Amino acid sequence: MVRDPKYDILFDPIKIGPKTSRNRFFQTSHCAGPGSERPGTQAHFRAMKAEGGWGVVFTEYCSIHPEADEYPYTSARLWDEGDVINLRYMCDMAHKYDSLVGVQLWYSGIHAPCLESREVGRAPTGLVSNMFPSRTTYGSEMDENDIKAVINMYVLAAKRAEQAGFDLLEVSGGDSTVPIQFLEPRYNHRTDKYGGSLENRARFYVELMTALKRELGDRCAITTRFEVDTLHGSHGIEAKEDGIRFMELMHREGICDLWSVKIGDYEEWGEDAGVSRFRKTGWMTPFIKDAKSVVGNIPVVANGRFTSPDDMVNIIRSGVADIIGAARPSIADPFLPNKIAEGRPEDIRECIGCNMCVSKFNQGGQLQCTQNQTAMEEYRRGWHPEKFEKATDPCSVLVVGAGPAGLECARVLGERGYTVHLREAEAEVGGHWKWVSKLPRLNEWSRVITYRQLQISKMKNVEVHLNVGKMTADDILQYGADRVVIATGSHWRTDGLGPEGHVPIPGADASLPYIFTPEQIVTGKPIVGDRVLILDAEGHFLGITFAEMMADMGKKVTYVTNLSEIADYGVFTLEVQNNKRMLNEKGIATLRNHWIDKIEPGKVTLGYMYRHSADLTGPNTGNVPRRLNPGTVEIEVDSVILLTSRQSDSELYRELKARKSEWKQNDIEAVFQIGDCKAPMQALQAMFEGHRLAREFDSPHPEYPLPWIRERQVWGHETFPKMGDARPKVEVD
Amino acid sequence: MVRDPKYDILFDPIKIGPKTSRNRFFQTSHCAGPGSERPGTQAHFRAMKAEGGWGVVFTEYCSIHPEADEYPYTSARLWDEGDVINLRYMCDMAHKYDSLVGVQLWYSGIHAPCLESREVGRAPTGLVSNMFPSRTTYGSEMDENDIKAVINMYVLAAKRAEQAGFDLLEVSGGDSTVPIQFLEPRYNHRTDKYGGSLENRARFYVELMTALKRELGDRCAITTRFEVDTLHGSHGIEAKEDGIRFMELMHREGICDLWSVKIGDYEEWGEDAGVSRFRKTGWMTPFIKDAKSVVGNIPVVANGRFTSPDDMVNIIRSGVADIIGAARPSIADPFLPNKIAEGRPEDIRECIGCNMCVSKFNQGGQLQCTQNQTAMEEYRRGWHPEKFEKATDPCSVLVVGAGPAGLECARVLGERGYTVHLREAEAEVGGHWKWVSKLPRLNEWSRVITYRQLQISKMKNVEVHLNVGKMTADDILQYGADRVVIATGSHWRTDGLGPEGHVPIPGADASLPYIFTPEQIVTGKPIVGDRVLILDAEGHFLGITFAEMMADMGKKVTYVTNLSEIADYGVFTLEVQNNKRMLNEKGIATLRNHWIDKIEPGKVTLGYMYRHSADLTGPNTGNVPRRLNPGTVEIEVDSVILLTSRQSDSELYRELKARKSEWKQNDIEAVFQIGDCKAPMQALQAMFEGHRLAREFDSPHPEYPLPWIRERQVWGHETFPKMGDARPKVEVD
Repeated sequence: MVRDPKYDILFDPIKIGPKTSRNRFFQTSHCAGPGSERPGTQAHFRAMKAEGGWGVVFTEYCSIHPEADEYPYTSARLWDEGDVINLRYMCDMAHKYDSLVGVQLWYSGIHAPCLESREVGRAPTGLVSNMFPSRTTYGSEMDENDIKAVINMYVLAAKRAEQAGFDLLEVSGGDSTVPIQFLEPRYNHRTDKYGGSLENRARFYVELMTALKRELGDRCAITTRFEVDTLHGSHGIEAKEDGIRFMELMHREGICDLWSVKIGDYEEWGEDAGVSRFRKTGWMTPFIKDAKSVVGNIPVVANGRFTSPDDMVNIIRSGVADIIGAARPSIADPFLPNKIAEGRPEDIRECIGCNMCVSKFNQGGQLQCTQNQTAMEEYRRGWHPEKFEKATDPCSVLVVGAGPAGLECARVLGERGYTVHLREAEAEVGGHWKWVSKLPRLNEWSRVITYRQLQISKMKNVEVHLNVGKMTADDILQYGADRVVIATGSHWRTDGLGPEGHVPIPGADASLPYIFTPEQIVTGKPIVGDRVLILDAEGHFLGITFAEMMADMGKKVTYVTNLSEIADYGVFTLEVQNNKRMLNEKGIATLRNHWIDKIEPGKVTLGYMYRHSADLTGPNTGNVPRRLNPGTVEIEVDSVILLTSRQSDSELYRELKARKSEWKQNDIEAVFQIGDCKAPMQALQAMFEGHRLAREFDSPHPEYPLPWIRERQVWGHETFPKMGDARPKVEVD
Repeated sequence: MVRDPKYDILFDPIKIGPKTSRNRFFQTSHCAGPGSERPGTQAHFRAMKAEGGWGVVFTEYCSIHPEADEYPYTSARLWDEGDVINLRYMCDMAHKYDSLVGVQLWYSGIHAPCLESREVGRAPTGLVSNMFPSRTTYGSEMDENDIKAVINMYVLAAKRAEQAGFDLLEVSGGDSTVPIQFLEPRYNHRTDKYGGSLENRARFYVELMTALKRELGDRCAITTRFEVDTLHGSHGIEAKEDGIRFMELMHREGICDLWSVKIGDYEEWGEDAGVSRFRKTGWMTPFIKDAKSVVGNIPVVANGRFTSPDDMVNIIRSGVADIIGAARPSIADPFLPNKIAEGRPEDIRECIGCNMCVSKFNQGGQLQCTQNQTAMEEYRRGWHPEKFEKATDPCSVLVVGAGPAGLECARVLGERGYTVHLREAEAEVGGHWKWVSKLPRLNEWSRVITYRQLQISKMKNVEVHLNVGKMTADDILQYGADRVVIATGSHWRTDGLGPEGHVPIPGADASLPYIFTPEQIVTGKPIVGDRVLILDAEGHFLGITFAEMMADMGKKVTYVTNLSEIADYGVFTLEVQNNKRMLNEKGIATLRNHWIDKIEPGKVTLGYMYRHSADLTGPNTGNVPRRLNPGTVEIEVDSVILLTSRQSDSELYRELKARKSEWKQNDIEAVFQIGDCKAPMQALQAMFEGHRLAREFDSPHPEYPLPWIRERQVWGHETFPKMGDARPKVEVD
């Protein structure tokens, strides 16, 4: 196919300092998890985006020195020769595709927990970190000598970056790193020439960029990622005040080859990586649109979860920016640029803005992606998002259930050349994701279904059979497929059994008119009365979604959770603050660390989970060996929504497995189960299971995964540093 | 010196299946962080305990299969040949000291987040995990074929363990792993021969031990660590019911060579690793004391944070156990057994039960220890807890301030042969730790001071000068020391400045009679009135300690925190449940996610931290760009205690640094700062700083650390597995 000429502008080369990007697609620095600790994972992940057409690809944030150690969160690092070796492999791989490679230089100031290095960050003022408060993380106030030392750390790291092969050296002036700590009155309480006026607060940032420009500016582009509005009012940086004025000031110095602009600081990271539940594509534009007006011909990069080439062209044509930055869209589809170039933008696997990616990083892991099951598997399992090994001996496969797992499995089996029948009991594909993506705020999530529907519709070897009703074991045995994949999903419990005690809740029975499962609500079971209580033990998006839905219906809503945090998983997806803001604004009452003792008509009795004594009363029989204290509360309610736990719809698979002796006579080689019917799981995991099974469908034992490469130190191999190595001196005497 | 004969019994060899331990000191399996990912760190850490006299040393919990992947929490693993190589080094090192080496075989059932492996744990019943609830972690219900497969996983892992050189193969029947999930009615809802009666629920555990005994019992000891009471009443395992009956049942089978017994399940881990704030030495004894009566001559291990040899002897003499198990005491002093053997038990560096060790693991890091600064630094920095490199050119050193950092620095400098003057302004050593360890529940923490005092008192080259008042820069310049170490500590802010906004709180001024800093309370400033509000932004132990102290004085107490959890750091130290139980029992009101807007006499106005809208209202000037919603609450109070943040007492160091030009004329080579005066930090970090500086005092640039070995994959080195490796089949057809 041929590229639509209206998109040509996206493919114009652009000069960035001494370098030139082949196009306007710029993968901004984003967390991923490999750092310089897992060099193969890092290199293959980033190089996949270079292969897919991104003109610039970046590492995640990269610590310049052990004083900026964010461990257990894994950043890239440029501390020593080992890091140079590891990151060089990434640069070499991305350069094969003619992309530029960037590194984001990071020094955290007061926000350095230093759990590995056990050092202490230096900062403009010796304040406590608001990011790691209970971990007693403070910065040490810098004197002028320290300021020179820290700038020197940047220079030394930048030189290591150049050795590794990086083209763009980006100073993080975002996420409340030390340049912004100097700039922002909140963090800078100094009274010397580095504090007070904007010029003084900007001094560190300018001196730093100047030093990098002087030392490396002829060989590398010296750039910055700047948070033009920290969203804290006059207390922070405001786009129309210090934000734009600082850009003018720095631009006058001629030391910045590219501006990548964004909003939100470390605390408000969720406003930079905005979820689709709260932020629609381009939400940052009102804050960043004036940037271009003060930096002349210096290129500006704008992010905004852009997945549509029309939106991208519009951002450039309207003068907001010269370059389209993307983090999540490049994870969901590393081949986004190439698909536009090849005239098939409809094949783009669009980011749904669910932030599952960062949620995995925030748990200390490698990112995962709801839309792209190959993300982070490029190296360790050798998976390519757009290339599929053809089956050597393609057979016929019956996939039962077209929810996320079944859809993804059928898609990949189809790509590999198998003959697939995907059979769905209901009238539409999507499984539970159908109703999930129709809930308030979640409509972008429907892309999970539509992408897979479209891809499958192009394959002649995959048939989708809708509205076929529930298949029985007999149906399957007689179906005539060589292999069978069961993907029948799960449902919410009707009896209130959940993580607290793993017993049903007395009085909980969703066949009663005033007790509800999620499925009952979305299929129209009428809410009773005006007072609704939601018990949320899932702690992800469903509980608060129903809470908001009920409040919008005019109900008086009480949200109860056994967890210590409201919709706890939002801590990982960066939604927790906006979730709590939304609940407060809508007048929804919340109660934490409580569980339902019993439900009676019109009344729920809640128990505080810590109403027993801290003291142990010695071995006991029949009772918890602690004193029981007061800690129950009765609430009058009309309707109760239970999100306590889910249950696999595994009967079909179990029956087939029990009738294994009949497989052979029916010419069935194997029966597999994937997704929720095996165990309830996040949708991205269900799709991973479908994808993985299809990728390894001709392995000796497809029901369990082939080994993957574990990147870790193996005893006897070289270490970096070695015992007795010196550390480069950074202090200036 | 000569060992006291009353302790001889601790050094009697004891037979454990086909093996013999040289004594009764048994380092039970405990979390540490290195796993099989950091083989050098693992081996040197465990081998140090073997060197120090522990007859048995264990790994941490060791996953037998990728289905039991607890990543990001780092367990040991026995998944492949790489793990065998890595753990073999540990075994080889510990064997040099004639210790036995054990591995704890672990399969997590429903509690496997599998963030790295992306697999799913199998379990007796397909329930949601109560340990990782918001992470959507469920187990997949096993059929009989799965049961055989999982037992086979154990056997295969045990064979790899034998290859690596392990002597003891311990099945984890604690921490809610799969054997206990079968045993406990909470987790086992089966109706087949693996559910229902005790005999049925015990079947999996017995079959597993039987298989291991059959396959490896002649070469390795097959042992178990069993939670005899899960502390959940009849719903779980009770010591006097299923706990003891199960031990009888299993003992009859003759398949267990050693019983290590404990209490508390995964959820109540803090009752196994009990903190001194809640549990005194030997707290488990009432629950485990009957174990010995049902297992005949099979050895029983008892833990209980034992650090006194008299307590240990008593446990054995009274028939509670044959062997003294220890995790934390062996971290605080790897040489505990040897010190008893050498007749110098007063030199034992006793565990203080603060659980900082596990708090670091729970953050995803390597453990750290308040008492032992060399823990986990044995390999990466080459530190030995009892051996110190003599200074080649010892000079005279003035250490200013005898808090934790100064004490530890002086001790290590003394061990290295420097001439040290440790000068303290006040009448006693200890700094702020003096008053901290006099607070309710914290008296064991005084061991931090007494251990160092005693050690220093034995050194002729270290003088301690008490009651010398605050030294000035002039005093120091004229003191005559070659080098100076400043360790002047920090103090709590008097103006309410803290992590929320980093500005003082309006009306907060601790010179007012009704506003208090921690130091003011402990020095006797009288509490005003009956209603006390505590603002805790530290989130560790001080806020709740003052809350309890005030409640015990009869005050009506409100505990307010900006954080989402009450005393948030207790999540890491395993105290959070008992903290909340204690607060509830004492009637202390709690409020989360609030900060003080202003303080007036008799009244505090609190603001909810999420009272602005989730929606952004566009770029703004002077205000947060969100709608402001209701969210303030007024509370009538008489006294307000502020724990908002601390401030370094850094003036002395700053003045000396500013007067660097005068150093030479006063024959001063260098001035260093350590601990809180550099930046407020946890006491263990302050002591680490003192220790580190003293260890590296003759390095080229002692103010910053020498590089340490980073154990990580380096590109180009071999990986395990390699792409294309097979996985051993575990399913039984």
